[in-house]
Amino acid sequence: MFEFEITGTSSETRARTGKIKTSRGVIETPIFMPVGTLGSVKSLIVEELEQCSARIILGNTYHLYLRPGIDVIDHMGGLHNFINWEKPILTDSGGYQFFSLAKLAEFSDKGVSFQSHIDGSRHFFSPEKAVEIQMILGSDIMMCLDFCIGYPASEKDTMDALEKTTHWAQRSHDYWQKQKQNSNGKVNALFAIIQGGMYENLRSLSAARITELDFPGFAIGGLSVGEPKELMYGMADYTLPLLEENKPKYIMGVGTPEDLVELSGMGADMFDCVMPSRNARNGQLFTSRGNINIPNAKYRFDANPVDDTCSCYTCRNYSRAYLRHLYKSKELLAYRLNTIHNIHYYLDLMKKIRQAIDNDSFLSFKREFYGERGRDKF
Amino acid sequence: MFEFEITGTSSETRARTGKIKTSRGVIETPIFMPVGTLGSVKSLIVEELEQCSARIILGNTYHLYLRPGIDVIDHMGGLHNFINWEKPILTDSGGYQFFSLAKLAEFSDKGVSFQSHIDGSRHFFSPEKAVEIQMILGSDIMMCLDFCIGYPASEKDTMDALEKTTHWAQRSHDYWQKQKQNSNGKVNALFAIIQGGMYENLRSLSAARITELDFPGFAIGGLSVGEPKELMYGMADYTLPLLEENKPKYIMGVGTPEDLVELSGMGADMFDCVMPSRNARNGQLFTSRGNINIPNAKYRFDANPVDDTCSCYTCRNYSRAYLRHLYKSKELLAYRLNTIHNIHYYLDLMKKIRQAIDNDSFLSFKREFYGERGRDKF
Repeated sequence: MFEFEITGTSSETRARTGKIKTSRGVIETPIFMPVGTLGSVKSLIVEELEQCSARIILGNTYHLYLRPGIDVIDHMGGLHNFINWEKPILTDSGGYQFFSLAKLAEFSDKGVSFQSHIDGSRHFFSPEKAVEIQMILGSDIMMCLDFCIGYPASEKDTMDALEKTTHWAQRSHDYWQKQKQNSNGKVNALFAIIQGGMYENLRSLSAARITELDFPGFAIGGLSVGEPKELMYGMADYTLPLLEENKPKYIMGVGTPEDLVELSGMGADMFDCVMPSRNARNGQLFTSRGNINIPNAKYRFDANPVDDTCSCYTCRNYSRAYLRHLYKSKELLAYRLNTIHNIHYYLDLMKKIRQAIDNDSFLSFKREFYGERGRDKF
Repeated sequence: MFEFEITGTSSETRARTGKIKTSRGVIETPIFMPVGTLGSVKSLIVEELEQCSARIILGNTYHLYLRPGIDVIDHMGGLHNFINWEKPILTDSGGYQFFSLAKLAEFSDKGVSFQSHIDGSRHFFSPEKAVEIQMILGSDIMMCLDFCIGYPASEKDTMDALEKTTHWAQRSHDYWQKQKQNSNGKVNALFAIIQGGMYENLRSLSAARITELDFPGFAIGGLSVGEPKELMYGMADYTLPLLEENKPKYIMGVGTPEDLVELSGMGADMFDCVMPSRNARNGQLFTSRGNINIPNAKYRFDANPVDDTCSCYTCRNYSRAYLRHLYKSKELLAYRLNTIHNIHYYLDLMKKIRQAIDNDSFLSFKREFYGERGRDKF
């Protein structure tokens, strides 16, 4: 089961709220998906994710394929059962990791040949195989294999990546449809990915080709790969309206709190990023008044919570002084308490964005958001 | 407030159950105290400790003095408030760390001069200062500064350490009594430590001298410092009856599950050890049928919990296959789920020991304990 319904729109912007319905639960959009790369959102248990209002998390197909291996997850009854998370999971296809992490990835019409970043072992993903693996994982939202390229990239290279992405999307779609027929429709949703780099003409071409196919949702890939912030926003602003209005629009691998506000305003419905959890492990905490670096000496005697407007477990129970001490002492609890706060901050921000859209007060929300940070825009 | 009451005795052994009453709660003995070296039992939140039935934890004065510093904990209203743990805390005096960790420790009648293991900075602890720091920490059970020596050690060196320990205990006692008078008795309990190495005559001498002073409880230090297991048991068995029966008897820095069973049988009331938490971080998990190494390949597809007789959070929710995957992938969650299990195992074992004593079935409990491990003794 997969349905998407738009429940609210902003008269001042393209922002909208919606509901994604899956057999494992309803997801209110715009939504942020915490990243559980290897089958855990680093340091957290699933109950903490739920307390932070997480309604869907992301798993990385590339990582799970290498460790623990799809055979293990298959034997354990799928990813949800393995990691003890009953709500929806979106899995990526591996495309981004072939770009960012794997060694010696070779892209052909057939698929991607790559070496494991762990042991150098050689593997091959075809578009069909990427879907097949995600079906074994039991992912509620699967992603098509795509060819992501960095910034800067020539128009020729970008066009080549786009063409492979398009060709693979077609094959993924065919394979997915066939699996659906073989199982009386009991196959989860598959989203396709728009590429096209920083070229508007190629983004248009990619969107036109990919949206010809009847996918239940679309993602914009290849953003936040090193380009300036303004260019990222420009490309998202250009591409989002090219996607079908009545389907979820997912911007992959983005971003900062400011990104979530800006891109929601442009009509994006879904986000994922390692930033809240990774920054937590680096001692950087998000607050309504901007980021703080918890190891800073000025917090040594600070009895206040990280953010006195925050209702997360960490802020309800611990001082900045304690968090600083744990972090400086490299105590494992530091990473966990920091991650709880940052994930809570992100999901609470999404809740505020949804409320602002539903109240049709998105622009005043945005002014307030930047105002609390002592700025007037990103 | 500090009271100790014996609530049950074993007719077959010297084992006994009791209750230690403090202003922060009642502790049923024999008890194991999880070690929260730097103000956290590594990777756990206080709620998890409570769910594992922890009733008292241990903090290390040496470590907390160096990080975050006593000034910080003083400013934050004491250790309980700083770390968000409302139940009793026992703090050691630093004596063991001067032996095991600090650089260039120099022992004199006056006290210990040492260098920080972190930055090499020079510090000095007198017996009075060790009590003063523990009073600032707000420890419910403080420990006298002692001089711990390793194994093997000559009789002369052991005698020297013993004499300093005795002298310091006297000075600690005087200082503690003076503080009590100055504060209308509102000073927490102070325990003294018996030394004497592996020499029965010196253990006798130490016990005789130290128990002349009116301390509310006594500890046996200088065990588990490298000596053979039989010798450790022998010294504990020899020394425990030398301590006053109507006061708690604490064996410091011990030990394995087998140690807890053996030493409880000899009449020990309190234990602490980093073993359950440290082994958890090394992938070694305790079960009723002995230890398992979770990274072992044979657990790759194992859908069973660590111990099917265990009711801890980890065993109720996760498979060996998942724990193995997390551990092999160095996921932070591995350390946490493993630590929950091991701490729960230790505290559940203490519960079973107390029940066996109260039912006067300690020897049959002990046979069963070893029988489950496929052995007939330690």
